Amino acid sequence: MGENEDGEIIEHHVNEEMEKRHLTRRAGSFSEGAKRHSSTQSSHRLLAYSDALISIIATVMILPVAHTKIQENEELKESLQQLLTTKIAVYLMTFLIVTVAWAAHIRLFQVIERIDDCLALLNLACMMLITFLPYTFSLMAAFPENILGILFFCGCVVVIGLIQAVIVLYGFSQPFLLNDQIQVSENLAFYKKHILKVILRVPVFCFVAIIFSLIFPPMAYVILAFVIFFPYISQSLKWCHSKAVGRQVETPESMLFYSYHPNEPLSKERVEAFSDGVYAIVATLLILDICEDNVPDPAEVQHKFNSSLVVALQEFGPEFLAYFGSFATVGLLWFVHHSLFMHVTKSTRLMGILNTFSLAFVGGLPLAYQLTHEFTRNSHNELEAIQISCVIIFFAGIFQLAIWVVALFSQRETLHPCVHYGGQDHAFMLAKLALYPAVALGTFFITCVLSEFSAPVFHLTQIVVPVAFLLLRLLVRVALAVLHWLFCPHRPTMLDLQGEEDSRLDFNDVVT
Amino acid sequence: MGENEDGEIIEHHVNEEMEKRHLTRRAGSFSEGAKRHSSTQSSHRLLAYSDALISIIATVMILPVAHTKIQENEELKESLQQLLTTKIAVYLMTFLIVTVAWAAHIRLFQVIERIDDCLALLNLACMMLITFLPYTFSLMAAFPENILGILFFCGCVVVIGLIQAVIVLYGFSQPFLLNDQIQVSENLAFYKKHILKVILRVPVFCFVAIIFSLIFPPMAYVILAFVIFFPYISQSLKWCHSKAVGRQVETPESMLFYSYHPNEPLSKERVEAFSDGVYAIVATLLILDICEDNVPDPAEVQHKFNSSLVVALQEFGPEFLAYFGSFATVGLLWFVHHSLFMHVTKSTRLMGILNTFSLAFVGGLPLAYQLTHEFTRNSHNELEAIQISCVIIFFAGIFQLAIWVVALFSQRETLHPCVHYGGQDHAFMLAKLALYPAVALGTFFITCVLSEFSAPVFHLTQIVVPVAFLLLRLLVRVALAVLHWLFCPHRPTMLDLQGEEDSRLDFNDVVT
Repeated sequence: MGENEDGEIIEHHVNEEMEKRHLTRRAGSFSEGAKRHSSTQSSHRLLAYSDALISIIATVMILPVAHTKIQENEELKESLQQLLTTKIAVYLMTFLIVTVAWAAHIRLFQVIERIDDCLALLNLACMMLITFLPYTFSLMAAFPENILGILFFCGCVVVIGLIQAVIVLYGFSQPFLLNDQIQVSENLAFYKKHILKVILRVPVFCFVAIIFSLIFPPMAYVILAFVIFFPYISQSLKWCHSKAVGRQVETPESMLFYSYHPNEPLSKERVEAFSDGVYAIVATLLILDICEDNVPDPAEVQHKFNSSLVVALQEFGPEFLAYFGSFATVGLLWFVHHSLFMHVTKSTRLMGILNTFSLAFVGGLPLAYQLTHEFTRNSHNELEAIQISCVIIFFAGIFQLAIWVVALFSQRETLHPCVHYGGQDHAFMLAKLALYPAVALGTFFITCVLSEFSAPVFHLTQIVVPVAFLLLRLLVRVALAVLHWLFCPHRPTMLDLQGEEDSRLDFNDVVT
Repeated sequence: MGENEDGEIIEHHVNEEMEKRHLTRRAGSFSEGAKRHSSTQSSHRLLAYSDALISIIATVMILPVAHTKIQENEELKESLQQLLTTKIAVYLMTFLIVTVAWAAHIRLFQVIERIDDCLALLNLACMMLITFLPYTFSLMAAFPENILGILFFCGCVVVIGLIQAVIVLYGFSQPFLLNDQIQVSENLAFYKKHILKVILRVPVFCFVAIIFSLIFPPMAYVILAFVIFFPYISQSLKWCHSKAVGRQVETPESMLFYSYHPNEPLSKERVEAFSDGVYAIVATLLILDICEDNVPDPAEVQHKFNSSLVVALQEFGPEFLAYFGSFATVGLLWFVHHSLFMHVTKSTRLMGILNTFSLAFVGGLPLAYQLTHEFTRNSHNELEAIQISCVIIFFAGIFQLAIWVVALFSQRETLHPCVHYGGQDHAFMLAKLALYPAVALGTFFITCVLSEFSAPVFHLTQIVVPVAFLLLRLLVRVALAVLHWLFCPHRPTMLDLQGEEDSRLDFNDVVT
């Protein structure tokens, strides 16, 4: 055993050393400085923890929506209107705000690649305030005429901005913490100024909003709305401009970091970590409730159900079905997301935004599933709940598909060759991404026509979809073969070609 | 821009190719097979998602504990007894059960290193059942005399075991999915048999428990208790045996995987991911409640507080303080954990178990903090709540320290040289790990003596500790210098030596 383990350790360290040497070559002479400071650490785990925190916080405001009790006797439509106007809007807005904060965090730690204890503690302080944002926002939404909400919210944003500025100043004071490209660049001072300017833009606006809230509150809200939507507006304007006039030439310095260009790279690793966090918390949202509320009270069982636990649990039956249904759907949407990002080689800002939209809809799924099981069979409410579920699934899926379509536009940079147009797995990937939107759309229209069979149809799809995913590769091959046989029967089939191409299709296609 | 980005992409792919070549060299000829299957994927993200799900599920049963309302008028002691006997026991047991399932999951995916779509879907099915375990267990705890709970629980475990067995069979039917060491070994059939035997042991016991529950229920509980505690008992017996008799010689095949030896390696990456998940969910536990319940109702504010939001929020003040306090404590404990595992090069099963214990206590922190702020000042209840908080922090910290002590026993294998005994950062690491237990212990005894000042003392420590972490490196250097000056003033100081040693102390120390 001793020998064996030693062998492993040696190999382990040889690997580490190889990586180190590799890094050294890339970073030039600066990493020597980094090596000497044993307190300097890779930021990987700090970012994973931050992603986990932010993903929980992004989805937290769905809980007040999910816990709004809908009375069986009143029509769903009426209570839904009340829901839609306040709680769902608050959920979507906080989701947006938190993801904006998250995007800013990504940008910051793309510049600062190594951390030390001081930066780790500063980051924790920053996280604490970010987790407080949803509460301040919902306070603002509940009391729009009271300036306390806006004061809290803007105060949080200002402090977050100041902490991030301190992080940047600290990072630039110890250059071995910085991104290697910035380290070796000659414009260190320019970078510092540019990044600080971008980071402090939002806090300054919020500070102005605080001042206005004391003088003329409506103006404060206008400023806030401007701050939240500004990146999106400027980005779409830029995009339109670039499409109309042709690509704008910018300095490479401002392009690499903090450019707010749709093609700005966004750490793929962090997009995945954040998405994993959201999918995980959403998948378990219903079991949290079930564990807390749905363990029957022993005394109640004795009196109400004649000590029969089976009868008592039958009352909670719909909730279990809802749990399994929503877990399976969220899990399969995660599976599609996982398959997609496995083939993505570089994620961009635009893909990140589409991913955020998809996740925002995923967050609503448990609520929708809970509703589908809460109403009596064949009621009008049940039909509406099922249709809402279909709409949510459709949008969650269609935004995933949109990520792929956007990636295909610049496929040489962003996608693995095997899913390029005409690539080996192109059709398979398309089928994976299109399955949920197609099924959701189909179910929606079927329930519109055959409204009395809505529940059986919905439950049937819940069973069919996982099986379809299992057999998808087979189904796609059959479909391709049929299409081929129908339209061009005299050329050799795709399947025959694939076997030959397999060995040639490789990463080299991108490099050359 | 075009040139610049192309350059980046080429570099990116060169790196990927280097890694690939490296992998190929390690895996021998088998990875060629893996490369040919474009559907084969690295399991990294699947495991990250599983870790996120399991960490949420492990901490979910703290919610019923946290939401137990304690009446101000009754004594904390009495309601605590009720809490302690049922809900906390259920929380600790489910935490233990879920972490056992998680450890089994790690073991499984140390053998199966690559996945395809089919395995990903099977794993999701497995996850769905694991997330259902806490509910079935709490049902069993609430209705011990009803066999339904034990039937559900054992049924879940049996199905999880069967799915894992299917995963193993599928993995061995396509050997390129397996761990490289197993792939190249000649005893493939032996491995398959051994792993299946270990995996199916628990489901078989549970199946026996199901049968007994129909005949003689008490026996079923005995079997279950045996199943849950068996690995721990057998392990401590083995450890005692190896210490008493001397190291036992086992076959290397059974040593590498599924050996249940305290030194069995446990994927460090997954221990970190799971811990991150638990720390993240625990840190945000209070804000979940605050966001849901503590946004005052506009109508209530108008009637009860004369439309004064400030007064209404003052009522919720203690909860905010509790949130910031618990977030800071959990965040700093995460920080210590992060610092520790940064220097751990290989984590073992024993370290994993100690980590689990530490996390189980961390899960109780938000509850304790909430209690400290819920009672009127200087009441007996407040004092007890503060002391409970101190005890929880102490144990959470002391188990972290225990991980380090265990790692030091075999420091050449498990620790980075700079924190070895006598190493450059040894004293600093010790100070980091000892800070929280020491402060908690100190606060506990101070509050015992000066019971009327318990709240100010407690709040003071909450402010002092983060500052202490910021200045820790400085404080340790000062303390070391003082110690040096006191005991051996004529030898050169550690500080002088450090500067010289810095360049020499490197990974090479382990390899040679």
